[in-house]
Amino acid sequence: MSILIFGHKNPDTDSICSSLACEYLKKQMGMDVKACRLGEVRKEAEYALNYFGVEAPEFIDGVKEGDEVILVDHNEYGQSADGLEDATILEMIDHHKLGGIKTDAPLNVRMQTVGCTNTILYQMFKENKIEIPKNIAGLMLSAIMSDTLIYKSPTTTEADKEAVSALEKIAGVNAEEYALEMFKYGTSLDEYSIEEIVNMDFKEFDMEGNKVGIGQVFTLDIDSVLDKKDDFLDYINSTAYDMLVLAVTDIIKEGSYLIYKGEDDVISDAFDVNGEQGVFADGVVSRKKQLVPNLTSALK
Amino acid sequence: MSILIFGHKNPDTDSICSSLACEYLKKQMGMDVKACRLGEVRKEAEYALNYFGVEAPEFIDGVKEGDEVILVDHNEYGQSADGLEDATILEMIDHHKLGGIKTDAPLNVRMQTVGCTNTILYQMFKENKIEIPKNIAGLMLSAIMSDTLIYKSPTTTEADKEAVSALEKIAGVNAEEYALEMFKYGTSLDEYSIEEIVNMDFKEFDMEGNKVGIGQVFTLDIDSVLDKKDDFLDYINSTAYDMLVLAVTDIIKEGSYLIYKGEDDVISDAFDVNGEQGVFADGVVSRKKQLVPNLTSALK
Repeated sequence: MSILIFGHKNPDTDSICSSLACEYLKKQMGMDVKACRLGEVRKEAEYALNYFGVEAPEFIDGVKEGDEVILVDHNEYGQSADGLEDATILEMIDHHKLGGIKTDAPLNVRMQTVGCTNTILYQMFKENKIEIPKNIAGLMLSAIMSDTLIYKSPTTTEADKEAVSALEKIAGVNAEEYALEMFKYGTSLDEYSIEEIVNMDFKEFDMEGNKVGIGQVFTLDIDSVLDKKDDFLDYINSTAYDMLVLAVTDIIKEGSYLIYKGEDDVISDAFDVNGEQGVFADGVVSRKKQLVPNLTSALK
Repeated sequence: MSILIFGHKNPDTDSICSSLACEYLKKQMGMDVKACRLGEVRKEAEYALNYFGVEAPEFIDGVKEGDEVILVDHNEYGQSADGLEDATILEMIDHHKLGGIKTDAPLNVRMQTVGCTNTILYQMFKENKIEIPKNIAGLMLSAIMSDTLIYKSPTTTEADKEAVSALEKIAGVNAEEYALEMFKYGTSLDEYSIEEIVNMDFKEFDMEGNKVGIGQVFTLDIDSVLDKKDDFLDYINSTAYDMLVLAVTDIIKEGSYLIYKGEDDVISDAFDVNGEQGVFADGVVSRKKQLVPNLTSALK
């Protein structure tokens, strides 16, 4: 039976792509391996798989005694396949903290303090002098751009950037432009209604006697929200809140577009912007640390 | 404060030498590190340190909160420094099974299924293009020859042999000849009396109504035992056992020299040898699986 390679439960782009990249690497090294996944493919990873024409790893709902496995992008029982305690872990490739797994026999472990598992895999391809095919390079690059949030994450290292710089040549894409499209697709709100988006992550506050609601969504598909600004306003204005702010947060630009029920002046005061529907509040990404305190003082 | 590098408690040659080799490597990479040890230097490692003129790592009796550490040749709390739970593990380099350590932050871990930690360190020197000085190469080679029992251990891999092949050129020694001298010194019985050696690991058996005692010592310093064969016989013959066998086991030759109270014929029958004092019983290394059953049937 093939050695099973899988990332963590509720797999992100790194878990999906590292299982596939590792599968290719190990096959080239003569091993009988199979990439698997422990959950649904999310939209972001789906974009990468479709773009580079690679099939998703096979879904498995657990492992059992006798199975030989390679863990990528995780190293904790709680995040891994059900039954892992009974299987034989041959290898782990990861970039997270150490999670307390015990084995009965020696194994290969490679953990590095880099932004993404695929950065480690890139180094392993190089060390073993194995050429990375175009589609695998594309997946690896997708994962690194995802995990490092286009290098904005504090976990980003020079090794991640070096890997992407080499991988984008092989994959034939501009990594940043490609990643923005991937994030846009991955964070698309198309399947949600106006009401669902406003209430997706919504909290209510009392500010100086005013009943204030703040909703926040993280997306890079900003246009599709701003294009429906009037529909959002119709719904927002129909609510019973004295003030309601929907913050559409762009994690790459690191700021939020604001659609609101309330006075323009309050928004102007709170965020030092020209108060108008859809205005971009630069640097405002946290409800707790920015939206709430700023609005509270502006309402005083 | 320097980052502390140490191997396991009750350190063997690999734990001592890997802390020193790792110290040199990391210093060359610009890190402020210090090699330490968690216990006494055993005679085998002492031989290597003396031969290559390197001071032993500093003894520490534990670590505390705020200490930053690199673990070599082990990865379990139980084998490591007291207080390790409170310290910060920055890196682990090892070749054993995974021992269940948990960390709060990502770290570098390098575990490979090779015979010795110094084989991994050798690869790290190469990957980082750092030249290995003669004395460090000597220590690394000592550790690999020790852990692999001059390649006789089933844990030995091609990677271990490749490392030694390169290291012996740098160290300017013949690895096998050097290792035999190191083992001889490390397993020397010079400090023990005849009586202590016979009783060091002694068990009594009833075989067909005969009271039989079997002592076993592992040493490569065979000559110093055989030179005193008559003194051993004087003591052995003075005991009340019907039969007493002292097996002086040579782990490299994989057999035992036998000094005994009893009939030559029984020894001849039991081990298919020419029964005489000091005879070498080829392949006989286990008391439980060979000495006891063979003697029992010969006495029938």
